[in-house]
Order: sequence, then structure tokens, then C-alpha cells
Amino acid sequence: MKFVIIGGDAAGMSAASKSKRNNPNIEVTVLEKSQDVSYSACGMPYNIADPNRSMDDLIVRTADEFRSKNRINLLTGHRVDKIDPVGKTVSGISFENGKESQTFSYQFDKLLIATGAAPIIPNIYGVNLSGVMPLKSLEDGRAIKSFIDSNLNSKPVKKAVIIGIGYIGLEMCEALKERSIDVFMVKPSEQFLPSFASELADVVKQELVDKSVNLYCGYNIDKIEQNSNLNSSSLVVVCKNRASNEIVNLDADMVIVASGVKPCSQIAIEAGLEIGISGAVAVDKNLKTSDENIYAAGDCADAFHVVTDKKCWIPLALRANRAGWAVADNVCGINTTLPGVAGTAVFKIFDLQVARTGLTVKEALEFGFEPAQIVIQSRSKAHGHPGSKTIHVSMVGDKKTGLLLGVQMVGKDGVVHRINAAAVALHAKMRVVDFAQCDLAYAPPFGPVWDPLLTAANQLIKKLG
Amino acid sequence: MKFVIIGGDAAGMSAASKSKRNNPNIEVTVLEKSQDVSYSACGMPYNIADPNRSMDDLIVRTADEFRSKNRINLLTGHRVDKIDPVGKTVSGISFENGKESQTFSYQFDKLLIATGAAPIIPNIYGVNLSGVMPLKSLEDGRAIKSFIDSNLNSKPVKKAVIIGIGYIGLEMCEALKERSIDVFMVKPSEQFLPSFASELADVVKQELVDKSVNLYCGYNIDKIEQNSNLNSSSLVVVCKNRASNEIVNLDADMVIVASGVKPCSQIAIEAGLEIGISGAVAVDKNLKTSDENIYAAGDCADAFHVVTDKKCWIPLALRANRAGWAVADNVCGINTTLPGVAGTAVFKIFDLQVARTGLTVKEALEFGFEPAQIVIQSRSKAHGHPGSKTIHVSMVGDKKTGLLLGVQMVGKDGVVHRINAAAVALHAKMRVVDFAQCDLAYAPPFGPVWDPLLTAANQLIKKLG
Repeated sequence: MKFVIIGGDAAGMSAASKSKRNNPNIEVTVLEKSQDVSYSACGMPYNIADPNRSMDDLIVRTADEFRSKNRINLLTGHRVDKIDPVGKTVSGISFENGKESQTFSYQFDKLLIATGAAPIIPNIYGVNLSGVMPLKSLEDGRAIKSFIDSNLNSKPVKKAVIIGIGYIGLEMCEALKERSIDVFMVKPSEQFLPSFASELADVVKQELVDKSVNLYCGYNIDKIEQNSNLNSSSLVVVCKNRASNEIVNLDADMVIVASGVKPCSQIAIEAGLEIGISGAVAVDKNLKTSDENIYAAGDCADAFHVVTDKKCWIPLALRANRAGWAVADNVCGINTTLPGVAGTAVFKIFDLQVARTGLTVKEALEFGFEPAQIVIQSRSKAHGHPGSKTIHVSMVGDKKTGLLLGVQMVGKDGVVHRINAAAVALHAKMRVVDFAQCDLAYAPPFGPVWDPLLTAANQLIKKLG
Repeated sequence: MKFVIIGGDAAGMSAASKSKRNNPNIEVTVLEKSQDVSYSACGMPYNIADPNRSMDDLIVRTADEFRSKNRINLLTGHRVDKIDPVGKTVSGISFENGKESQTFSYQFDKLLIATGAAPIIPNIYGVNLSGVMPLKSLEDGRAIKSFIDSNLNSKPVKKAVIIGIGYIGLEMCEALKERSIDVFMVKPSEQFLPSFASELADVVKQELVDKSVNLYCGYNIDKIEQNSNLNSSSLVVVCKNRASNEIVNLDADMVIVASGVKPCSQIAIEAGLEIGISGAVAVDKNLKTSDENIYAAGDCADAFHVVTDKKCWIPLALRANRAGWAVADNVCGINTTLPGVAGTAVFKIFDLQVARTGLTVKEALEFGFEPAQIVIQSRSKAHGHPGSKTIHVSMVGDKKTGLLLGVQMVGKDGVVHRINAAAVALHAKMRVVDFAQCDLAYAPPFGPVWDPLLTAANQLIKKLG
């Protein structure tokens, strides 16, 4: 059995390793266009923040280890350009020292598309200038870090503009501030963190203001130019307020492009496979595409959402790993289905922990629920216990069914792992009244007697009627 | 409607307040034998640890506030000695300045017994000596703190013996070490923390050894004596090794009795009410006793366990508050049932967080399950992220049904709120295979891609077959 995998990141390498564990006789070939496999992509901002750490710290396993220990035919520098579903071949071009070297073609019995996602590079004049950089691959991370470390033109990087205020933009903001770089964040929409309840988004916004981050929400970027003033920063980012048309020129030594990502599904489209939500490859609960010999997993593929039971595209690391394993099982004849994702996501921004799972009110409305929402403030420690911080909780339930639909939390202490309780409740399709009865942990150093989630649930019950 | 409540602690005051919120016209009388109501009992060890905090910091609400704001007839210094279920009266004696003052009798339509639990005082010669103290009531807490602060006989407290190594004993151990007091802990059984997986108990034990706590597991206490050597500590605790009969004399300036608690159910027994497990008052899911006008809630009452569906007695603060509310609803005609407890408990001991929910292997066997267990080590942060600590997880599942039965965790970072995810899974009666599919949170500062609970579940699945 020939199992070919396109892409050697989380989903691809999880599938490769697990299929060899399932069946040592399976012939596994991984075709990865870059030189890096199996690294902690989400760790890049934290690594960039620390000048004393090597980017290679993030490599979990080297290509050579996969080759020798796992007996995987792992081919880096191999870019697949075409899938032939009928002839069951993939073909492309290999690279050596960064140059196209020779074409290749591989026959498969089962194929996994694990091509991941790519950064969205906005169509802005000057986006290709030196010093304007996205962060997606380990190569991107190395480029940003060496740009900061190299003190280009003997001038240290003092000012940076970040285009986009999503998770990666915010994590990079913290990383650059750690490196004593002044940060200016720009985004087109006025609304800060639209995927969070506005009360919670305001708390995050205030944290950035408190840490002297300069926010430009509601600004388009007109262009990026070389700075003619040689005594100043090398770049100028020209922004225009969308409401007032006011022009703001932001000097920058570097520009981080963090405008989101899109699924790398072009070869799947060209192969005639069914494409689902957000341009991701459509898969069933077995991770199978519309072709019965071809699977897709990771950031390039869609998933079912456990709250809506509808398709969604939420590219996150755990799902990629889990889907890779499931594909390996299915390829090896062990029928494995994945129920789906709850959209659980957490991030850190300076002293704040930010967490969400499930649906916002807006998403709940889009999927035909009748949402009720409560936003409360609770504490991270018991009454009278020193060091207690505010925990903000937003909880959404459905008036028609009483079901819990989503939870979001923000605070400086005790937020991040609490969200998992709500995520499990979403998987179990719990009603808010049942979630409110859960026996959650209590000890004075760790929370109030009524956990913030229980207080929110108790309040939400009243609104659900 | 006359609603009488015996006991003004968590369950009693929750019931009193909620019943007035439900129905302002209800006549609520609370009879509390001490002078304190509504305080954070679990906060006492942390308060004792800090010489600059007043014990009154732990009072959430004063008796006067309940009287004026909530219009509750709250009578402190009132000890109920008798319940007459037929005549629907309670009677007892009131105290003034610590002395018996006069008898009282109150008529009720509905009665709540919320008498709590009392410390078990072992029958040891010398247990009544000055300096030998339990910790249960706020008065106990004040006595311990003022004993330490008073520097009795101009000698500071330098050495303390703690009898018992449960949650309270361990929390007091940390508190006394904070006050620079040498601690000696003594218990009869050889097994350290028998309600935890031995691998996890060993981690806790090592933390105590690392912090120079002196442990005597497997020792009975023969007697406590005044020390004849006036230049030494005032007390001597005479311990005997149960296996070797070796005698160890421990000098102590104070002795903390932390040998566990027992339900205060004597008046319920004398009133002929049905008594359940561990001597607690038996209640149904409405918190009703065997008498249809009498409820019981809090540490004096039993509860259903959500994993076994059988009765248990696990006296903890959240359940007491929740049960108080439920009684208030039921008394006011709002039918409210409580599913039960999962036995979720957490505590901190020095740098360690310790958490459990559900059943141990031993408990699972007792309740007729066919348990399989896995013990793993994972990390509190992602690969390559600095500051990562070991997280130890024990997970138990049932081979017959595949159900998750219990989880325990120990570690220095990221343990305590993670247990809530498992607690919710127990309430939802999830199978381990389904729990393993939950979309738990991931970001590098907060954990590995596969949350330690998911890694444990993935491993346990293999053992469940």
C-alpha cells in the first residue's frame, strides 16, 4: 500500500507517523516543499521575543529522525503542483539550494492533502519591499528574527507596523514590545476583536493601550513606501481613516503582515475535488474528500462544528494533529470518525489570558439559534484571598433549546484552562441548566466557591426563561 | 409560611437569602449556635499564614447585614437541641457572653437542617491540653492565629505537630511553614494521601520533603503531655510506630488536630430522621429528608454521586451553597433537584496544585466497575516554551462501558482548572473515547498541543480495549 502525503507539517507528519505505527509495512511518502517539518509554529512569536533562543528550539522532530526512526520516505524541497485522481499520481518539482531541480511523479493508493494554510498578503503597493514580512512558516519566523537581530544598516529596529489585529498580530505585538520595539497596529474594521463579546474585546483593547501599543482600527493601508528621510525609519506605511479619509503616515523599520490565513487548496481545486467553506477542501467525518482515495486534513480542510453540526473552517493546531491521526487510521483500515471542533482558542496578550469556545451571539444568529447572552465579572480567587484578579465571562445560550452555545473569558489569572470545561459541555451538548450543576473545583487560591463559569450560567438561566 | 433554618453557615445562609429573594413574604428564622455566619472557612489556613491579615477579612457578610438588608431573623448564639417533627417545633438554649441564657422554641412549616460538620477529635490522652487545637469554625481559626501571635510565655511558636494529613492538615502545614514554624505531620496509616493514585501521592510527598516537612506516616499517637523541660517546647506528642512499636517523642509548641470531620447529625438522629452514608442525614435529590417538611443541606447531609448514582458523603463548600439554594427553591414551591456531586476537589501545597474528580481505582472497584487506569506525565507548556513544568495525570475508565470514571492531576503549573473539564465530562457521562475528542484549548504558554488530559485519554483508550 502506497500512502502519499502532500505537506509535512502537523497534519501530514501526524498521519505519516501514526500510519507507520498502525502498520509498519505501509509505504509512506511525504512531499514537503520547504525544508522544515514538525515544528511548533504557534511558538514562533514567543521565540522571536527572546533573543537568546534559537528558532530551531521549535523543531519537535527533524526530517532525519522521521526518516531513520519512523522509516518514512520524507522528501523535503518537493513541491506538488498536480494531483491526478484518476491515474492516482501526484507530480511536481523538487528544489535544491532554492532552485528548481527536477520534476517528480509519485503513484498513490491513498493520498492525504495536508497543504496547510498560507498568509493572506493584501494587495498593497509596496508590500514586497524589504522589511515587510508575514509570519506563517518557520522560514518566515527566521526571517523576522534575523531582521531584528541584524540591526539593518547599523540601525536597530525601533518601530514596527503590524497589519491586522488577530491572534498572530497580537502575539507578534507582544513579542516586538519584548524586543523594545514600538508597535503600531492597523486594521480596516473599526471593531476591535469582532469574534469576542464587545465588553471582553474592550478589556483586551485597554491592555494594549496600557502597554503603549498604538492602535489604528478603521484604517485602510494605502501603500508602503521607502522613507526618503535617511535619518528616519526605512519605511513609511500610509494609512487612511475609512470614515474621515484622514491620512496617517506611520514610520516603520519593519512591517508584519498578519491579515489572516487562507487554506492552500489550489491543487485540490484543480484536481476537481469538492471545495467547502472558506475555500477549504471539503471532508466528511472520516476526513475523506469527494474522491474516495483522497483525504484532506489540517488547515487546508474544513470540519464539522459540534455546536452547529454544520461545516466550519477554524484552522488550529490540535485539530490538525487529530485529523492526521484519524486519516492514518482510516488509511490503515481502522474506521475513525471525528465529531468536529468547538472552536476553542486561547491566547496571551501581555498580562491577559483570552479564551473562547463555541459561538458568539452573531454566529448563533447566523445558524438559526435564538441566543441569549450574559456578561459578568467574577474573581480569580476567593473572597478575601490576596492577589485576586477580575475574570470577565460572556456566555451564550439558546432560548429555544436551553443549550449552551458558547463561552468567552478574559482576565489576568485563571482564565485559560477554565474554558476547557465549557468546551467539554459543548461536545456533550449540555443545556445551561445542566452545566450550572457541574461540580467544579474550589479552593481559595484558585477561585470563588462558585466558579466564574457557574456564576455566568446561573445568570444566563434567568435570561433563557 | 415559617421557614426555620438550623445553622448559619454556607448552606443555611444560602437558603435563607435565596428564599427571601424567591419570596419576600416568607418568614425566615436562622438559629446559629456561634456568633459567626457567612465566612470563608476554606480561607482560614491562608489567613493564618499572613500575620498582617485580620481573621475578619474572611467574613463575607455580617449577621447585621443579613438582618437589615435581607430581613432574615438571624439569631446567633442559639443552639438547637431538639427537633419535634410531629409538633413542628425546634427548641434549644440561647447563649449570652458564652453562658447559657434562656431556652427557646420555634414553630416551623418547613425546616432546614444545616448543622455542618465537626472536627473528629481523637480519643487521646492530653488532647484537651492548652495548645492542642482543631480547625473548623472561625473561632477555631482565631484561636490558632492568636496562639501563634501571642508568643505564649514569651516563647514564639517554633514547632508544631499536625495530627492527620488530609486537605486541612496539608493547608495548615503550609500556613505554619509560612510563619516559620517547624512542622511534624503524623498519621496512623502508612499510605500517604490514600485517595490519590500512588504515583501522584508520591509527588505530593516529595514536595513536603523538599520543603523540610517531617512526615510520620504509620504512627499512632499514644498521648500528649506537658513538657517537663521548661526550656523546651510546652508539649510532647508521644507517637508509636504501628509496625515496629518504636516510640518517637515530638516536641511541640502547638498541636493541630486535623483528623477529618464528621456530619453534625445528632439532632436529626434523635428526631428519628433517616440517616445515610457516613452518618450524614439522608436526603433525596430535592434535599428532602425522610420527613416531608424537613430538608437537610451542606456538610451534615449526604448526596448522590454522578458517577456511581449512589449516595456519598463529600462535604465541600460548593455543594453546601448549591444545596442551600435548592432547598430555598423547593421550600418556595420551585421544584429544584440536584443531580449530585462528582467529588471534585483541589488544593495547593507549597508550589504544587493537586486536583481530583470522580473515582479512584479503589472506589471504582467498590462500586462494581471494571476499572482501567493510566498514569502519564505531560508538560504545562508547549515544546520549547520556557518555564514548562511536569503535569502528572491519572485517569480511570470502565472497561465494561468505556465510561470515564475519574481523573487526578498534580503539578506546579496549569493543573487546577484543567480538572474542571474532566468534572464536566463526568456529569455528561462521557466515554473516554468521546472525551479524547474534545476540542480543548491550546497556546504555547498554556500547554502542549495535546492537552495533558487528552494525552491521558488517548493512552487510556488502549487499556480499555
